[in-house]
Amino acid sequence: MRSESPDATGRPMTDANADHSLDAFHRGRFWLVQPRNAGHRAGMDAMMLAAAVPGDFSGEVADFGAGAGAAGLAVIARCGTARATLVENEPAMAEFARLTLAHPHNTELASRARVLIADVTLAGKPRAEAGLADNAYDFVMMNPPFNASADRATPDALKRAAHVMADGLFEAWIRSAAAVVKPRGGLAVIARPQSLQPILTALKGRFGSARILPIHPRADSAAIRIVVRATRAARGGLSLEPPLFLHDAGSGRFSPRADAIANGLASLFGD
Amino acid sequence: MRSESPDATGRPMTDANADHSLDAFHRGRFWLVQPRNAGHRAGMDAMMLAAAVPGDFSGEVADFGAGAGAAGLAVIARCGTARATLVENEPAMAEFARLTLAHPHNTELASRARVLIADVTLAGKPRAEAGLADNAYDFVMMNPPFNASADRATPDALKRAAHVMADGLFEAWIRSAAAVVKPRGGLAVIARPQSLQPILTALKGRFGSARILPIHPRADSAAIRIVVRATRAARGGLSLEPPLFLHDAGSGRFSPRADAIANGLASLFGD
Repeated sequence: MRSESPDATGRPMTDANADHSLDAFHRGRFWLVQPRNAGHRAGMDAMMLAAAVPGDFSGEVADFGAGAGAAGLAVIARCGTARATLVENEPAMAEFARLTLAHPHNTELASRARVLIADVTLAGKPRAEAGLADNAYDFVMMNPPFNASADRATPDALKRAAHVMADGLFEAWIRSAAAVVKPRGGLAVIARPQSLQPILTALKGRFGSARILPIHPRADSAAIRIVVRATRAARGGLSLEPPLFLHDAGSGRFSPRADAIANGLASLFGD
Repeated sequence: MRSESPDATGRPMTDANADHSLDAFHRGRFWLVQPRNAGHRAGMDAMMLAAAVPGDFSGEVADFGAGAGAAGLAVIARCGTARATLVENEPAMAEFARLTLAHPHNTELASRARVLIADVTLAGKPRAEAGLADNAYDFVMMNPPFNASADRATPDALKRAAHVMADGLFEAWIRSAAAVVKPRGGLAVIARPQSLQPILTALKGRFGSARILPIHPRADSAAIRIVVRATRAARGGLSLEPPLFLHDAGSGRFSPRADAIANGLASLFGD
């Protein structure tokens, strides 16, 4: 994945001459066609989200806000019989997801994935008509467009669109997840810690047995992301898992655990 | 504090022949008179809560649900000019707080503390009439009675009363905290991770710049407590701090950081 995750030779696996890039993930097990200088480029967030799915998962996952398909492909690359629906509302990004599935490097995976252009904030009949049927998925994962205030300087309209957080966004996304997932199906959300309250409130009465996993750059710094996993209609209480520290002290490289998770070799929740 | 924190000789500092005990905290800087076999005995929770107050705090702290006064005394033992109001609704426990302040070992601290028997779930005029005036405190800390399902076996009525969690408990306690604390005053709450959603919802619109600090027994186990600190009417977002691990791997003793925090030698949030 981008420059953080070069291939075995140390070179970033990127096609040099195009307005899109072709980037290797999971050490070359799959490739992503994505905008080079525009839109939301996939990276560590998508890999962490995908790593929240248990390793023995074998059903169909819906990737809400799939972008070019990074998280969905990461799941089916790790879980050999799983299938993925890449749900993206932005036609320009969905086109990158289509190009990703059509790329010869991804032939095997593409047979287990499809792209759906749909607005996951729809409800009721319009949502079903958009292709998101009730009780259709075994797992829903989401990387909702959150308000990255640190990114405010960016002039790029596509990137802005992907980062603007509307009030009630988590409520709408998680409401749809609860509708389309099967009973006892799973949910995984990656977000900033600032979004914890709206996420937990949206889970209430829909998903239970929530597990929060904080992701910190280092052992002595505040979390930059949380991954929340929960189960539809489960009744267990919330737990706060041991955190993931991306880097060891004094090192710019990923810690061994972070590297394994980023490359599809370990799951975030130990299963 | 109790057997986890014996004095320098290794003996628990407890009076042997009474239905109450006299227990040393902060390595003998203050002592607590508390029921030996009944009620809620103070321990690590109270010390962690007190450690959430900044070291340079010099105002008046209200300790909601003070019990025998452990957290309030821990704050004024560490913060040399701070004053504490120990707010306890259970007369039997408030009597222990009185005995604590009256004990000769605590003479200096007692001059900066008082006991108030009051129900912190009151609102409006009844709350003020109970002695909890609006805008009266610089900091409110609370260890609300949470439902310790692991303790269900206990037959003790007092302990049960301290552990029963009513719906809306955090809403009521935090509503009162917001009323009695001064503008820009502080709040600290210790609770189980399961209570995160009601806590964050109760903070909304009242306290901002919340900082959550998870407390784990060890680096590889889920958190058993959270301490949440926030500021009245502040507008900052939530942060998720690096966790505290109570024990190092393979050790039954407190880690150096946990020991320092338990003994009033370090603050939980590094200030």
